[in-house]
Amino acid sequence: MGCEHNCSSCSSNCQTKDKNSFIVETNKRNSIKKIIAVHSGKGGVGKSFVTCMLANELAKKGYKVGILDADITGPSVPTAFGVTENLVGDGELMFPAITEKGIRIVSINLLIDDKSKPVAWRGPVLGGAIKQFYQDVLWEEIDFLLVDMPPGTGDVALSVFQMLPVDGVVIVSTPQDLVSMIVGKAVNLAKMMNINIVGLVENMAYMKCECCGNPLYPFGPSKLNDVANEFSIKPLASLPIDPTLNKQIDAGNIEKINYPYLDNVVNALENLGKKKLDKNLF
Amino acid sequence: MGCEHNCSSCSSNCQTKDKNSFIVETNKRNSIKKIIAVHSGKGGVGKSFVTCMLANELAKKGYKVGILDADITGPSVPTAFGVTENLVGDGELMFPAITEKGIRIVSINLLIDDKSKPVAWRGPVLGGAIKQFYQDVLWEEIDFLLVDMPPGTGDVALSVFQMLPVDGVVIVSTPQDLVSMIVGKAVNLAKMMNINIVGLVENMAYMKCECCGNPLYPFGPSKLNDVANEFSIKPLASLPIDPTLNKQIDAGNIEKINYPYLDNVVNALENLGKKKLDKNLF
Repeated sequence: MGCEHNCSSCSSNCQTKDKNSFIVETNKRNSIKKIIAVHSGKGGVGKSFVTCMLANELAKKGYKVGILDADITGPSVPTAFGVTENLVGDGELMFPAITEKGIRIVSINLLIDDKSKPVAWRGPVLGGAIKQFYQDVLWEEIDFLLVDMPPGTGDVALSVFQMLPVDGVVIVSTPQDLVSMIVGKAVNLAKMMNINIVGLVENMAYMKCECCGNPLYPFGPSKLNDVANEFSIKPLASLPIDPTLNKQIDAGNIEKINYPYLDNVVNALENLGKKKLDKNLF
Repeated sequence: MGCEHNCSSCSSNCQTKDKNSFIVETNKRNSIKKIIAVHSGKGGVGKSFVTCMLANELAKKGYKVGILDADITGPSVPTAFGVTENLVGDGELMFPAITEKGIRIVSINLLIDDKSKPVAWRGPVLGGAIKQFYQDVLWEEIDFLLVDMPPGTGDVALSVFQMLPVDGVVIVSTPQDLVSMIVGKAVNLAKMMNINIVGLVENMAYMKCECCGNPLYPFGPSKLNDVANEFSIKPLASLPIDPTLNKQIDAGNIEKINYPYLDNVVNALENLGKKKLDKNLF
């Protein structure tokens, strides 16, 4: 009988039954210290924004940082960093794009010529691309490899959590009730996969009124502490909407931005211990 | 040799080579006049919001409306309508939930008990669920079946466009540049699949300042006409951010909202002709 990938009900004693069997290894020329996934159960909450700003802040503190853009069906990381040239390789390994401040980036958008072309790939192909981004890229020495996850709990999210030895996941949310329900899905997926949850970042929490400077709440009042309590995770940061910031990001100038709002997240990542993971759950 | 699902390079003359071969038929007890997909290349732009408000406006005009919530990894339609009871069936067909105003809804969230449980299904299973939502649901007579698409151009989006005889797609965007690039992917996917694009709706375009009533642009100035021009599609509507609206939606009171902003979209859908589709592209 062929493998049905359901170890729990299978009596065979094959190799894939080994613990951590889905975890892949990166190539020997790399040394990656911590892998942090930035995730949410839903798109459009600013996961890529948080990934990029976090990469910036870590780089400013002297860490060697990489971004693996796993949001293959809607990648926005390269644009934010003003990186446009397609990736090249040496026949064996692919070289990441390197930003002005030295952040290394790999993204599907750096492999296709027409950036508005839909990447209409089926799940297994997407999973394969992510595996390649981890295994066949010359990341060299990296303190923090941030993985900008695809939204949702579908194929690609599953693949990343199964294949990469993720040390922690940062969950991103916005103040909308509906979105919190969906964040619950992301939290529960991480728990199912036995992955350490670093904490919760609330994005688009407020903006400053242009007339009086008072805070406005376009998506309702902050739910950071409520949602964090509900799922027993750490509330880490509440981020404002800032139209001037968006302009700089759209222009590819993200590395010129000073952004003190993520200090708590940076601390949490610095203090995050390595953890032996048991991924044999699916 | 087994089927590799690549008709263009295959010499076999099998049944699946027939035009429209992937299109499935709904059951004989249904009569569905028009199927409209609401799509975007990215999550969080308010696709579900537009789907629900559009359903409302069409229902108010006397049309029989159904919502097929295909956003299986992050479904928010039932919450907006305050529908919570799980779906039941008669052994043969499943019955949709029916809202106060008579809108029929089918969503994965109405099939699972713990709403915050992640639906961590692989692509083919997701595709199968959508097929079932179309085939095995007693929709009865429907003028407009709105399909709330999953974000992105991945598995589930592909499946919907391949399997359902979609008459038109409404593309949703926000004013951010990055998002427009990603909307391009959705537009191009629809073109690849030979599906009629009804036009573009820009969500979160502005909000009213609480002090002076002037418009504020949290995500930058409107890009509706620019993006519509760029991709040669019709600009249909520019929607405000309204925190009071969000509150009503979070409370499940979406049907109590008066929303004149979608009149153009409703007109476009009313005037949309049936079209013979050629889906034999994948």
